[in-house]
Amino acid sequence: MARSDFRFAHPLRVRWSETDMQGVVFNGNYMNYCDVGITEYLREVHAGDVEQLRHVFERMYVVKSTLEYHAPARFDDEIEVCVRTARLGGSSQRVLFEIHRGGAHLLSGESVYVYAHEGRSERIPDTLRARIRAFEAMAPEE
Amino acid sequence: MARSDFRFAHPLRVRWSETDMQGVVFNGNYMNYCDVGITEYLREVHAGDVEQLRHVFERMYVVKSTLEYHAPARFDDEIEVCVRTARLGGSSQRVLFEIHRGGAHLLSGESVYVYAHEGRSERIPDTLRARIRAFEAMAPEE
Amino acid sequence: MARSDFRFAHPLRVRWSETDMQGVVFNGNYMNYCDVGITEYLREVHAGDVEQLRHVFERMYVVKSTLEYHAPARFDDEIEVCVRTARLGGSSQRVLFEIHRGGAHLLSGESVYVYAHEGRSERIPDTLRARIRAFEAMAPEE
Amino acid sequence: MARSDFRFAHPLRVRWSETDMQGVVFNGNYMNYCDVGITEYLREVHAGDVEQLRHVFERMYVVKSTLEYHAPARFDDEIEVCVRTARLGGSSQRVLFEIHRGGAHLLSGESVYVYAHEGRSERIPDTLRARIRAFEAMAPEE
Repeated sequence: MARSDFRFAHPLRVRWSETDMQGVVFNGNYMNYCDVGITEYLREVHAGDVEQLRHVFERMYVVKSTLEYHAPARFDDEIEVCVRTARLGGSSQRVLFEIHRGGAHLLSGESVYVYAHEGRSERIPDTLRARIRAFEAMAPEE
Repeated sequence: MARSDFRFAHPLRVRWSETDMQGVVFNGNYMNYCDVGITEYLREVHAGDVEQLRHVFERMYVVKSTLEYHAPARFDDEIEVCVRTARLGGSSQRVLFEIHRGGAHLLSGESVYVYAHEGRSERIPDTLRARIRAFEAMAPEE
Repeated sequence: MARSDFRFAHPLRVRWSETDMQGVVFNGNYMNYCDVGITEYLREVHAGDVEQLRHVFERMYVVKSTLEYHAPARFDDEIEVCVRTARLGGSSQRVLFEIHRGGAHLLSGESVYVYAHEGRSERIPDTLRARIRAFEAMAPEE
Repeated sequence: MARSDFRFAHPLRVRWSETDMQGVVFNGNYMNYCDVGITEYLREVHAGDVEQLRHVFERMYVVKSTLEYHAPARFDDEIEVCVRTARLGGSSQRVLFEIHRGGAHLLSGESVYVYAHEGRSERIPDTLRARIRAFEAMAPEE
């Protein structure tokens, strides 16, 4: 997939605390970068009030993540976390991630989120669903 | 203060993710070690049921911390987090920490905790207070 | 896969700092648990001197990770990180992870590691390869 | 000290992964914020090439930190990390930090850094010293 397939990218700078003894970003920290990415993506797409957004975040649970590490990020690197919704179900959302540094493609990821509250899955709010579909230019739901 | 001035020590092994590019533990992670230390200290001292303990943890807020770094811990080091209550007020607790690796004294710390719930300070439960005083062989309260 | 398919398990207790606002372990932290798991697994399997082990750790890079989250771990939970080598190539190792809490299966994971130094892949040391094959009762290499 | 006593402030947004079960930023993470603060401060003050800066970062070790927590930061808060050099010795630097969220003063901190390499203290490079003194409008050294 090309960097251009993403309509959303969020810039980050690698922090010292995120590196490890190998002098590169510790692998668990890429999950944090993706987490910042989905937060900022939903802020952009949702375009609504902050309380609603918080309500959404509190109901998003990751059920599966896959990360492919192509090249390491290093301290002080300016990276971009690219985020895209690939599929939107009734209560689940499949999200693709890429991390780039300039022309270098560092990471590809994919996470499946389910919306749930107190252990039960919930339907993703209709306003949010509509906005995601519009943002991603997805075909309307039947 | 000598290592022997502490009646409680909790062993930990330094994780890869806790190191940074300097090849030593990132300074912010020592706070996590102290936090694990106070948790295990209260478990030992409290000796009560887990639900009560959780209730306590949810009410403990740090208001001040001081850390002095004498020597760095490195990946895979087996360290000991020593914990001691130095003062016990109505709703506050001053706690001393030391981190040792064998004979090497790596860190001295001090934190003041206040007990609070929904923004208001609360009295530390009497059972817990009594147990801490007994554990530390503090003079009884008047 | 059953818990019994793993010959190695490492116990951990969930730290306060590893939870998030949802009251469960933040998803990125499971990567850290798996990282502690592979470290302890290699210590057990390698059974050699610490310097050699460090040499190994400094050369292990994750190229792909998949995590499936079945149920959340919570603060103070005593969990077990189960680790097993599923495939051992010349310079790569595919490792399976499971995290359990008592009878509850919380997470399944898989990571592919490559051995590399200064950007070039290296053959996994023969002693380590032999020990892993023996530990896992893998068929001998032709 | 007033917010206006600082000539440098760096904006940050609180990440989900930085919160804990209390719904606020975990106390150890404020150290990370201060660490990001000093990095950006030195970038601004140093105004030189990145390699030199990296050289500096690799030699900075914290020897003492004090943090006073006035009010908690929460998920998604936009905060400012204010940084100021209070004293500049031959190989040490005392730095003051404050974290603010709008009009609210959340944290005051102070760290003493020493410059060292392979276990020996080193003189802070003269160019960097001169730039810090100029930036902070400190009296020239005799």
